[in-house]
Amino acid sequence: MVAALGNAAGFWAKRGGFHAEVLGTEKKGQVHFKWGGNAEQLQLLFLEIREKLLTDCAPLTEKMEERGGGITGLELKVLPNILPNYYQLDASFETCDAMGANFINSCLEQMGKSLQNYFRESKAISDCDRECEIIMAILSNYTPESHVKVWVECPVSNLLDGNTEAECEAFARRFEQAVRISQLDVSRAVTNNKGIFNGIDALAVATGNDFRAIEACGHAFASRNGQYSGLTDLQIQDGKFRFSIGLALAVGVIGGVTAVHPMAKLAMKILDNPSAKELMMYLAVAGLASNFAAVKALVSVGIQKGHMKMHLSNIMNQLQIPEEKRAEIQDYFRDKTVSFSAVEEYWKSSGLRDSG
Amino acid sequence: MVAALGNAAGFWAKRGGFHAEVLGTEKKGQVHFKWGGNAEQLQLLFLEIREKLLTDCAPLTEKMEERGGGITGLELKVLPNILPNYYQLDASFETCDAMGANFINSCLEQMGKSLQNYFRESKAISDCDRECEIIMAILSNYTPESHVKVWVECPVSNLLDGNTEAECEAFARRFEQAVRISQLDVSRAVTNNKGIFNGIDALAVATGNDFRAIEACGHAFASRNGQYSGLTDLQIQDGKFRFSIGLALAVGVIGGVTAVHPMAKLAMKILDNPSAKELMMYLAVAGLASNFAAVKALVSVGIQKGHMKMHLSNIMNQLQIPEEKRAEIQDYFRDKTVSFSAVEEYWKSSGLRDSG
Repeated sequence: MVAALGNAAGFWAKRGGFHAEVLGTEKKGQVHFKWGGNAEQLQLLFLEIREKLLTDCAPLTEKMEERGGGITGLELKVLPNILPNYYQLDASFETCDAMGANFINSCLEQMGKSLQNYFRESKAISDCDRECEIIMAILSNYTPESHVKVWVECPVSNLLDGNTEAECEAFARRFEQAVRISQLDVSRAVTNNKGIFNGIDALAVATGNDFRAIEACGHAFASRNGQYSGLTDLQIQDGKFRFSIGLALAVGVIGGVTAVHPMAKLAMKILDNPSAKELMMYLAVAGLASNFAAVKALVSVGIQKGHMKMHLSNIMNQLQIPEEKRAEIQDYFRDKTVSFSAVEEYWKSSGLRDSG
Repeated sequence: MVAALGNAAGFWAKRGGFHAEVLGTEKKGQVHFKWGGNAEQLQLLFLEIREKLLTDCAPLTEKMEERGGGITGLELKVLPNILPNYYQLDASFETCDAMGANFINSCLEQMGKSLQNYFRESKAISDCDRECEIIMAILSNYTPESHVKVWVECPVSNLLDGNTEAECEAFARRFEQAVRISQLDVSRAVTNNKGIFNGIDALAVATGNDFRAIEACGHAFASRNGQYSGLTDLQIQDGKFRFSIGLALAVGVIGGVTAVHPMAKLAMKILDNPSAKELMMYLAVAGLASNFAAVKALVSVGIQKGHMKMHLSNIMNQLQIPEEKRAEIQDYFRDKTVSFSAVEEYWKSSGLRDSG
């Protein structure tokens, strides 16, 4: 993984590097509630309710507003198809450099209380409709509007070092086919995206971010059009190879573990203490680089050439083959298929085991 | 997380424990290829091709067959809607207690070579159709037939300690609503499943399993019906509360890191060295327990009560509040909303900072 990432990074460093853009940083949360009154009346009253809820949240949002964040949107969703009399307060947040989970959840729980108070007290509500059940109030890890885009590009003719133009074109075409398959076939899409998150999670874990949140959001994003699909895209146009990823991704660099755990602090320092937006870009870069390395290997030498080195080493460990005998075994298996039985067989029959 | 899991485990230990069943352990992989000949002819020839491919793989599968595994299926998929002249060899594998990634990839790469040889040599193929392009040969992390089911159940009336039957019923109804929402609303589904993987990943990482593979497969599985959906389910019937999870999940307990890394070995030892099937069940149990704890908190006290303890502690760290002053601050905020500004304000204005 590390070797593959380093390889991809070096490859693109010579070809203009990685380009990145943050398209949004909106985070989300919902108050899920039931109310037995008239839905249209509620929609009419919502401007007034919205006002009250935001006012009641003001003490909670003060600090975040000072930093340039706060509650950026609040909508009412009427969803009787999910449960009878069921609604959502769908809230949007800007949490700047913080992950903001506690901030968002505190605001949402306050909104739930305020909403119940509104129904209890408002003159616009008839007495038989004063009951409001808050089912739950909780942030969503699905943040499709917290969105980052990363791409690499170079002339197709410059794609491979020391190869002919025709070879570069053949490589580009093979790469394109692999990307197309990952977009349209779920078996390949899952493995493709898994490889993307190999890169992303390594950096997310290192910086103390919640990788389960990043995974859940990213994979749900991959299924947003009704079929689970690969997250990377390739365009070949006017002789240019352009490989890109668009990803829904929410992170923080202050609060949480990032600012507390010594290893996370060190990782952040190595990255020159990026902002949350910068970290979003770095994460997506790690994802794209990881995918580039995997697809490049897959459509050229095959994934096993690299894996097999590791596999052979694992098998030799299990067979407890002494260090000084290993080079010869590695040599022997350079052009052969590695399996436990093949290595064991060679180890026993080659005389290597019993030699000096 | 650990507290929540321990809590859920204790809760269900008194109510019959967790029930688990492995419904399948099939792993998958594909050879992606293009061939310009007639698709119907290829389908007719496939029995013969299949035979040749399996024969050629025999040296690779020998060891795995001794353990009771091997190649369990091989199908031809005709997929011109994805790419012109595009096919898949769709192979199924049983890898017993191994993750089997190297085994599967080696078999697939061999199948690719054998397939090319077949086209090159077979008398049934006309000379203009001898070319076959292997796009890639690679396992799939999507394993919908590697499937585990876990459930807990108890009488609704026994759901809460020391509560009336009516309170138990109200809790069950609220829990049911939350589960229903997670199944039908993507914002909630993502967060719900994220919480499930909080439990699963902790155990996957501890046992040296590849959590990105488990995440990718699980989330794609969550979107298999065209909409990303919650993975847990609740049935209330005849006074019984039955909470369950069905999960596609592929793991290994031999080979890879599990048998090599000292911490993974220790974790496996603590688990009494489970088989792969047993580990599948344990992982799904961790997922269901984690989700139970989260939903229980959400529909009763709210998620923030637990989170806020941690949040307050983080804030006090940032404000560098001395240990001996912390208990008083914790007391003060027991019934108040925690935010950075509120804690800072109280710290400055309460006189606590300047006392003793």
